[in-house]
Amino acid sequence: MNPKAAVLSIGGEILDGRIHDTNAGRFIRALLSIDIPVVNILTCPDDIQQINDAFEFLFERCSVVLTCGGLGPTSDDLTREAVALFTEDQLVLDKKAEFSLAAYFERKQRPFDDTNKKQAYLPSRALPIQNNIGSAPGFIAAANGKHIVCLPGVPRELTPMLSETVIPYLQAEFPDKKSLSVEIIRFFGLPEATIAGIVERTKVSEAVSISYRATFPEIQLRLTGSDRQETAEAAQILVDAIGEEYLFSRSLEDSMAGVVHRLAVESNSILAVAESCTGGMLGSLLTRNSGSSNFFQGGVISYSNNLKSNLLGVSTETLARFGAVSHNVAREMAQGAKNAARQGVETGAKSPLGISITGIAGPEGGSNEKPVGTFYVGLSTNERTSSYRFYFNGEREAVRRFAAFAAMDVIRRNLLSLPVHAKEQEDES
Amino acid sequence: MNPKAAVLSIGGEILDGRIHDTNAGRFIRALLSIDIPVVNILTCPDDIQQINDAFEFLFERCSVVLTCGGLGPTSDDLTREAVALFTEDQLVLDKKAEFSLAAYFERKQRPFDDTNKKQAYLPSRALPIQNNIGSAPGFIAAANGKHIVCLPGVPRELTPMLSETVIPYLQAEFPDKKSLSVEIIRFFGLPEATIAGIVERTKVSEAVSISYRATFPEIQLRLTGSDRQETAEAAQILVDAIGEEYLFSRSLEDSMAGVVHRLAVESNSILAVAESCTGGMLGSLLTRNSGSSNFFQGGVISYSNNLKSNLLGVSTETLARFGAVSHNVAREMAQGAKNAARQGVETGAKSPLGISITGIAGPEGGSNEKPVGTFYVGLSTNERTSSYRFYFNGEREAVRRFAAFAAMDVIRRNLLSLPVHAKEQEDES
Repeated sequence: MNPKAAVLSIGGEILDGRIHDTNAGRFIRALLSIDIPVVNILTCPDDIQQINDAFEFLFERCSVVLTCGGLGPTSDDLTREAVALFTEDQLVLDKKAEFSLAAYFERKQRPFDDTNKKQAYLPSRALPIQNNIGSAPGFIAAANGKHIVCLPGVPRELTPMLSETVIPYLQAEFPDKKSLSVEIIRFFGLPEATIAGIVERTKVSEAVSISYRATFPEIQLRLTGSDRQETAEAAQILVDAIGEEYLFSRSLEDSMAGVVHRLAVESNSILAVAESCTGGMLGSLLTRNSGSSNFFQGGVISYSNNLKSNLLGVSTETLARFGAVSHNVAREMAQGAKNAARQGVETGAKSPLGISITGIAGPEGGSNEKPVGTFYVGLSTNERTSSYRFYFNGEREAVRRFAAFAAMDVIRRNLLSLPVHAKEQEDES
Repeated sequence: MNPKAAVLSIGGEILDGRIHDTNAGRFIRALLSIDIPVVNILTCPDDIQQINDAFEFLFERCSVVLTCGGLGPTSDDLTREAVALFTEDQLVLDKKAEFSLAAYFERKQRPFDDTNKKQAYLPSRALPIQNNIGSAPGFIAAANGKHIVCLPGVPRELTPMLSETVIPYLQAEFPDKKSLSVEIIRFFGLPEATIAGIVERTKVSEAVSISYRATFPEIQLRLTGSDRQETAEAAQILVDAIGEEYLFSRSLEDSMAGVVHRLAVESNSILAVAESCTGGMLGSLLTRNSGSSNFFQGGVISYSNNLKSNLLGVSTETLARFGAVSHNVAREMAQGAKNAARQGVETGAKSPLGISITGIAGPEGGSNEKPVGTFYVGLSTNERTSSYRFYFNGEREAVRRFAAFAAMDVIRRNLLSLPVHAKEQEDES
């Protein structure tokens, strides 16, 4: 039987709303990679009794608790004390942790005083985990079949400690785990309710459990079973029922931007963007992964009409006649972007592709004919220039994010020769 | 005495890592606005017994539990049943909720079947909360001084239900709350450890509690006290100790981008960007708030050297001699951006300001002289052109985010005539 795990985030800064807890997701993905499911996520204050109560509650439901936070040098930081209390241990100075800390402060040219030294006091029976990025060491305390993993709350410190020490430790502690078979299928372009309806009506093996969720603006389905072939078959049945064209990815690592990146490189395309209401979000998403210069030239953030004309060559007549948010302007913006992309194609070995977004993100600026949430995506290649009208009902940042995704999906569909489902206008150019 | 609250997120999609729980933050901010502190945040699976155990645990620590999720029509959705069990009530068809649901499906031109009707079954003694955006109604169940608020998990449905119904309900239920005095001070440009050290050494009233946290890449301090003047004085002492120039905001609503927006409008500036490694992130941040066209023209995403030359006028000689990541290129990019901004200044009534970022976000591309994490920010106005060298040790997306913030801070400091602390080169132009 596989062990179960829980995540405990310790710190008032989450409870008073100043930070979102993104570490829970990091823990969960790492644990799922070794087939340990997470049954609870809990956040509690920096308070020894509260942390102790949290351990009591969580260890009724699981045998591994991963904590983050509360390992710093301040008086708020009480995780070490709480773990010592819960495991009936005491804090002692760990010489190796002290040495690493001293070296860290030396490197940072900051004084290593008693306040900072506090971080080197660990429960006496705990296994220390070295922190190569920041100051606070982590540790693992185990007693009576209960495993408590304590890591600092800073993501770039936590991430390597998790993958390099904690995951190997858990694999060694639980060598006989049964492996789960998981399939992830990610869709864009259909409402969650539509996909939920199809899933409800579609028959797949009852041994496969399905859960689904909108990770705005995409929809992810997760299928879990014990038999690999059975799980894969169930996934394929659902993909067929929903429509393969809406499926953009089969893995958590492969984002929409990653898919566009791969397709663009494979097809020898070189992209440039022309962004109005998204203000650079599309370009920012497309350059998130390293290596994006292999397919991405850059482009123009043409927030104002002046820049639409001067940097992209959109005619002032088109702007005056159709308005900045229109099929025609989207197409001329895309052509301007394509011309920018073309500048990266010195030998003609690559195909330039221009993509544009112009829309009304709101909350002001809507009309009856073009309400807030209306946007146009233009696409221009050597073969053709098209534009598509979309509408998304939501808040400003949601409209912008949806528009950036819709534009990436237009690129994806273009490179895969799939149709775009939106009101379309096309010019041969 | 003020009531305490907890947040319970219900759903397997959080526990298996597909979504981050952003609703907890929404609940927390709304509750703090009426001086109700949150003592725990818990996520549990869609399972009646687990939800019941969660209520048991949380109600030992508070009197209000706000839940989200598990109100949909699928077999996963068990929140209604769990609340009925916990409050010893039963589910009955709520006629008004049924009517609203029927109208919703009519509006969406989708069939209103028994599966969907399930959402109108609520605990008999519960107070229904109408959902004007999506399908699932919410409700409030109260028994023995315990208040359970159940809202759907979709943020744009939850948000108005929270502000329009739940908050007024809690204010009416707890009319005698003592108000807390809270001061938020937000800094950028100093490491967390430096600020933490200053806070530890600085004496403020012991009646004021201080908590701090890095909300990457800024640092937020929150001061809470019962006396408004005492809390404000403590905040000022800390601001003076840390350095007023690093303080960019005193409210959770006023982000760095919001501050730049306000300062630019107040100073009659018109901005344009030239972004290399950030790929549009700076523009995306600057256009997040409505009304950004009042100070923002747009700009160029000059990811490739071709676009640096062709759209921004960076000389190919400068690129060849100093490299794309250099003081000189940052300055020429900023000048190109300023020229773009100038196009929006037809009457000369506004001052153009160009801001540029060029850097090595990694993980590839670093050298001994310019390691991964090195970036330059250029600034060009009618008066002068300067560039600043920065370094941030982190992962690709962290470097990009830090660089976008550093650029905004360079603008802020320029508009406030504050110094920039970085290796600087300046050309009079």
